[in-house]
Amino acid sequence: MTDWIKSIAWNEDGLLPVIVQDYLSKKILMFAWMNEASLRASLSQKKTIFWSRSRKKQWIKGEESGHAQNIKSMYLDCDQDVLLVQVEQEGGIACHTGRESCFFNKVSADSSSLEIDGDIVKDPKKIYGD
Amino acid sequence: MTDWIKSIAWNEDGLLPVIVQDYLSKKILMFAWMNEASLRASLSQKKTIFWSRSRKKQWIKGEESGHAQNIKSMYLDCDQDVLLVQVEQEGGIACHTGRESCFFNKVSADSSSLEIDGDIVKDPKKIYGD
Repeated sequence: MTDWIKSIAWNEDGLLPVIVQDYLSKKILMFAWMNEASLRASLSQKKTIFWSRSRKKQWIKGEESGHAQNIKSMYLDCDQDVLLVQVEQEGGIACHTGRESCFFNKVSADSSSLEIDGDIVKDPKKIYGD
Repeated sequence: MTDWIKSIAWNEDGLLPVIVQDYLSKKILMFAWMNEASLRASLSQKKTIFWSRSRKKQWIKGEESGHAQNIKSMYLDCDQDVLLVQVEQEGGIACHTGRESCFFNKVSADSSSLEIDGDIVKDPKKIYGD
């Protein structure tokens, strides 16, 4: 039923880079990794489940924060080694800093510095506890 | 002038994953990697320059195809280990298959197969020669 998964070019660690995009606004929300088990779990549950490289375990997005991502569509790239997932973001917050998107460090026009571009929607302490 | 580059968390190979997005349509065009030299070259030239992991050399996007990417804005993520680059795509083609985007292999609604979702704008033979 999912023969295309066999054609994926996993990296040397058996992982696939995953870009997560809001399905309506097209804003990039975050970037993470999946292994085959987390990809299959994501497909069956229609929610994003990643592989946490730091914690070395499956990471059900939203398990702690409540900010799950409901999968609307998925695309593999031309080399079948990168996945794009378009999602409905619960709570409107994808980032652990309480922002909508993880990509809030904007390079300034003269390239000299980073500027914060993205409001904190909810205090992380209220999301995760102290 | 670019102290923020020192705060980047390069991976074990000294590389940074880069997501390339059309600055107007917000469509994801491609995914590639930069090292510090290609990031600095991209910043100074305002065009994307990647590190080709397969060819092990700098890869000036559009050098062969003419389909350069003019950088409009750049964002680092919360962990400062992923870069998002918003670009104006010359020729409207980012993919070596002659398509606008590399992400044209859409996972079917029942997850059973991949469907092509993206027209070939220009025959690759006309872009690169035979």
